[in-house]
Amino acid sequence: METKFDFAKSLVWSAGEFLKAGMDQPLEITEKTDFTDLVTDMDRKVQDFLISEILSQYPADHFLAEEEDYKQPIDKGSVWVIDPIDGTNNFVAQKCDFAISLAYFEDGVGQFGLIYDVMAGELFYGGGQFDVFCNDHRLAAYQKKPLNQSLLAINPGMYRHNIQGLAGLVDQVLGIRTYGSATISMAKVLSGQLLGYISHISPWDYAAAKIMGERLGYVTIGLVEELNFSDRQYVMMVPASQCDRIIEILENSR
Amino acid sequence: METKFDFAKSLVWSAGEFLKAGMDQPLEITEKTDFTDLVTDMDRKVQDFLISEILSQYPADHFLAEEEDYKQPIDKGSVWVIDPIDGTNNFVAQKCDFAISLAYFEDGVGQFGLIYDVMAGELFYGGGQFDVFCNDHRLAAYQKKPLNQSLLAINPGMYRHNIQGLAGLVDQVLGIRTYGSATISMAKVLSGQLLGYISHISPWDYAAAKIMGERLGYVTIGLVEELNFSDRQYVMMVPASQCDRIIEILENSR
Repeated sequence: METKFDFAKSLVWSAGEFLKAGMDQPLEITEKTDFTDLVTDMDRKVQDFLISEILSQYPADHFLAEEEDYKQPIDKGSVWVIDPIDGTNNFVAQKCDFAISLAYFEDGVGQFGLIYDVMAGELFYGGGQFDVFCNDHRLAAYQKKPLNQSLLAINPGMYRHNIQGLAGLVDQVLGIRTYGSATISMAKVLSGQLLGYISHISPWDYAAAKIMGERLGYVTIGLVEELNFSDRQYVMMVPASQCDRIIEILENSR
Repeated sequence: METKFDFAKSLVWSAGEFLKAGMDQPLEITEKTDFTDLVTDMDRKVQDFLISEILSQYPADHFLAEEEDYKQPIDKGSVWVIDPIDGTNNFVAQKCDFAISLAYFEDGVGQFGLIYDVMAGELFYGGGQFDVFCNDHRLAAYQKKPLNQSLLAINPGMYRHNIQGLAGLVDQVLGIRTYGSATISMAKVLSGQLLGYISHISPWDYAAAKIMGERLGYVTIGLVEELNFSDRQYVMMVPASQCDRIIEILENSR
């Protein structure tokens, strides 16, 4: 597994270089479900790059990926979960605050995860049997702090409409943040800068952070039903030691 | 004015070094109006540092500053508007995403502004007779883009309660962001990453960005009444060329 983990680290780094090298080209931007749900040719190119590199080393592996028709269930064999560019709208409008994310599962068991904030040059990696690092810095497990001294990253639409009781939770924390990238938000949770992250997201958004978070005292759960690694769901990543209290606040606020 | 501008650049840089040198010390944190409105001893120390350095060079100058009793009206003489740490909650909880901000007025006319994102090492400076830079990079004037391809930074409470019609505007943009620092949000507007910023803020939050923005095609205005550089007000910084359209959308959404 160590060999595969090292391969993944070097792969995601190369994908970042590939992406940066193409950033000066004009983007082909396509709307998916609506004008806020964008995909670019670069999303597809980075995904193709990742998949072809993985297959050249591990030809029997499978993929669950954001773009195109790679929809292997994570509990069937060796499965890479790929988000080629998380935060596509930031990529298009800001040219920063986007990430490449990889997670690797064997028969449903998370082995490691990686989140690479390309423009900040910050690679988060680890989980499973591996400690979690940001670049050369080993991340510490969650240290308990009161909710009212902690920041939370959220989906603002869920807050506006108090979906799942989120507005009640927001009233009890120090503040809320919205960065426009699920994986970057969850990386800030891993590094202890945020208490947690609550949004409406897909497997490739949360897979890597979930695996790394388990090693640092965090849980990543579905708010309505169990995570199924298939549909877009209401997802919460919070410290295990605060989870019951947070669920209670959410339930009391609906 | 060039000498004073150079002095201000070197001063804000020194204040950043002063702040970073003190970051490992335990913070004394005090609540101002409530548990989300914090001030630390470091806010006061940075402000004292800035004021004493300015007075040593310019003993007749005056101050409008966030902490303590410096409340000179900007239209009376030579006035420095100071936010020693904008994004204090980020400073406390994240140790990043906070900024030192300075603006300088003579008889009410903005001469230059500076926003220093300390941990990112990004200094925005210029306005008045000076071009606007981020570090060594000269910033370009606003280039018109459709609203639905543009991101907006907002105060999430204003969005939740549709204050000033903000929810209607949000429906027409590519997405919204919340970074927890007014000056960093407005610096992202100056650099073209965001269309604009709408929040409920004080003079030291918007003074520097307003002066720099005027040089790049942005206006910073009060949504309810004219900016008075005194009270906390509903403030919007947007491209001058989009301002009428944005006001129309806000008015139609109330």
